[in-house]
Amino acid sequence: MPFNTQILLDNRPVGEAVASNFKCITVETPALTDGQVLVRHHYLSLDPYMRGRMNDNKSYAAAQPLGEVMIGGTVGEVVESRHPKFAPGDKVVGMGGWQQYSVVNAGEPGALRKVDTTHIPLSAYLGAVGMPGVTAWYGLVKIIAPQAGETLVVSAATGAVGSAFGALAKARGCRVVGIAGGPDKCAYAVDELGFDACIDYKVHPTALSLSKALKAACPNGIDGYFENVGGIVLDAVLSRMNAFGRMAVCGMIAGYNGEPLPMANPALILINRLKVEGFIVSEHMEVWPEALKELGALVASGQLRARESVAHGIESAPEAFLGLLKGKNFGKQLVQL
Amino acid sequence: MPFNTQILLDNRPVGEAVASNFKCITVETPALTDGQVLVRHHYLSLDPYMRGRMNDNKSYAAAQPLGEVMIGGTVGEVVESRHPKFAPGDKVVGMGGWQQYSVVNAGEPGALRKVDTTHIPLSAYLGAVGMPGVTAWYGLVKIIAPQAGETLVVSAATGAVGSAFGALAKARGCRVVGIAGGPDKCAYAVDELGFDACIDYKVHPTALSLSKALKAACPNGIDGYFENVGGIVLDAVLSRMNAFGRMAVCGMIAGYNGEPLPMANPALILINRLKVEGFIVSEHMEVWPEALKELGALVASGQLRARESVAHGIESAPEAFLGLLKGKNFGKQLVQL
Repeated sequence: MPFNTQILLDNRPVGEAVASNFKCITVETPALTDGQVLVRHHYLSLDPYMRGRMNDNKSYAAAQPLGEVMIGGTVGEVVESRHPKFAPGDKVVGMGGWQQYSVVNAGEPGALRKVDTTHIPLSAYLGAVGMPGVTAWYGLVKIIAPQAGETLVVSAATGAVGSAFGALAKARGCRVVGIAGGPDKCAYAVDELGFDACIDYKVHPTALSLSKALKAACPNGIDGYFENVGGIVLDAVLSRMNAFGRMAVCGMIAGYNGEPLPMANPALILINRLKVEGFIVSEHMEVWPEALKELGALVASGQLRARESVAHGIESAPEAFLGLLKGKNFGKQLVQL
Repeated sequence: MPFNTQILLDNRPVGEAVASNFKCITVETPALTDGQVLVRHHYLSLDPYMRGRMNDNKSYAAAQPLGEVMIGGTVGEVVESRHPKFAPGDKVVGMGGWQQYSVVNAGEPGALRKVDTTHIPLSAYLGAVGMPGVTAWYGLVKIIAPQAGETLVVSAATGAVGSAFGALAKARGCRVVGIAGGPDKCAYAVDELGFDACIDYKVHPTALSLSKALKAACPNGIDGYFENVGGIVLDAVLSRMNAFGRMAVCGMIAGYNGEPLPMANPALILINRLKVEGFIVSEHMEVWPEALKELGALVASGQLRARESVAHGIESAPEAFLGLLKGKNFGKQLVQL
């Protein structure tokens, strides 16, 4: 059986996550038993939620156990199968983790899904046509539920979720304003992703400054917000929300490393009769087929061309992941294996 | 025409509201024109929302204009009518303001409503069977939407809204825990209003201390919260919310006097996939008939026996209102005229 290099969580971060939290080992893949499939991973997905799993505190998801392979979405190819529905050569998406191969009990619901790469590149199933895309779809369609002509804002706009959010919102006739870090990302959001405007948070170090920039970019106020970051970005957007605005809370990456980040003025939730709702897309599997159908069509037609940052080799995963947490990636962060 | 003593807003509070913000004058009531009704007020309602109106900042409601009669709900009796649907002796509820009499254009939708005092005391139409009762109903039924057996918490539990919330929630088979100030109010909540427990926030000066008390009173966590106060009470409740909990945000009285009060850890909205929704009951007039019907039945049957604090004479309104803001009232605060 082939050798398999894996990245384990060795110890938990104290404050910021660092490379020494991870450990790299190589093991032989075990022989398959009935119902199992051996998958060789082509791409590993790196996502902000993984940082939350590294902590041991109460969270919405079980903590990543120490000494085990880091959790993560993967796309790849079946190389050996003892399950009747899978054959060598099948392209599949699953939760294979930070490793080169995985052994999957293919009969478990949701464990492994065959995908068609005729019109959609395999890696897109980890981004626009995968969990990040469905995340954007759920927050937009099920929580924000926009009307054409409304103004929507998304933070981390050029990431995998943000870029899908932009395409989905434009398709519904909304004005879409992004928030991203640096002039390159902001230009890309407008020129390539079709955002109406994009604000560089790096030139707005305070909530007040960012609030003024939002006022200029959103002359009719903000009706819907897709939250990925928290902190002063949240405070600034909250100050510009219109009455009856909706906020889909998907991530608060700004607070992952340490003390909780407060919300400066929660009374605005009352004053503007806002709805603020947190969600995790994996708890809403019933929407995935509908969402993936729309997302797949947008990608196949070229209306959603999401950028990817690709690191190479499983050993590069920790560094690429730490860069993602600091916004060094540009678009969906992948590791090619 | 009779003389009418009125309380005007003379100047806006700087920080805490004080008696000198108000001014008392006496004028003669004007002669009626066609379609008008003269109402003699029996009771004036004092409510926390009035404090927000005294400020000039952007809020959900127009600021109370300076030099005009303070806004307020009233119940009373028609003493003269030039409208065909109202006759002297009719008992009516309206927004007559802080004064002894009001002249009402009775044909305007919602301006004046006749009420039946056979089984329901007139003053209850300002409390349990009025705006505060419908406020509790909307937050409970339309936002929290509880299942029998869930645990619900309400702050300002012995006030007009809180006591109605308790009765409505018990009628739906929920465990209901109040938060109130002082041992008398807490005993009253449990012994008279039927709460399962009530926590005295005055013995819990920090969010952590209050959170521990909530853990003891809510062994299964908190599924729904009706927010009237904000500040550390909100932080403490947030720390005990269950996954998929709902928070109806009706008031944040703790922050009315000055700087916004932050929410310490908004990431909990995501971690526990909460829905947090602000509302103003006057924007949901479509639910009033259904809500008033249920509330009226609870009062008529004795299942909801809301306590009243009654001040006497229009001149006592400012002092009674300032006491309300400090929690000196016990139950619904009224002024008998």
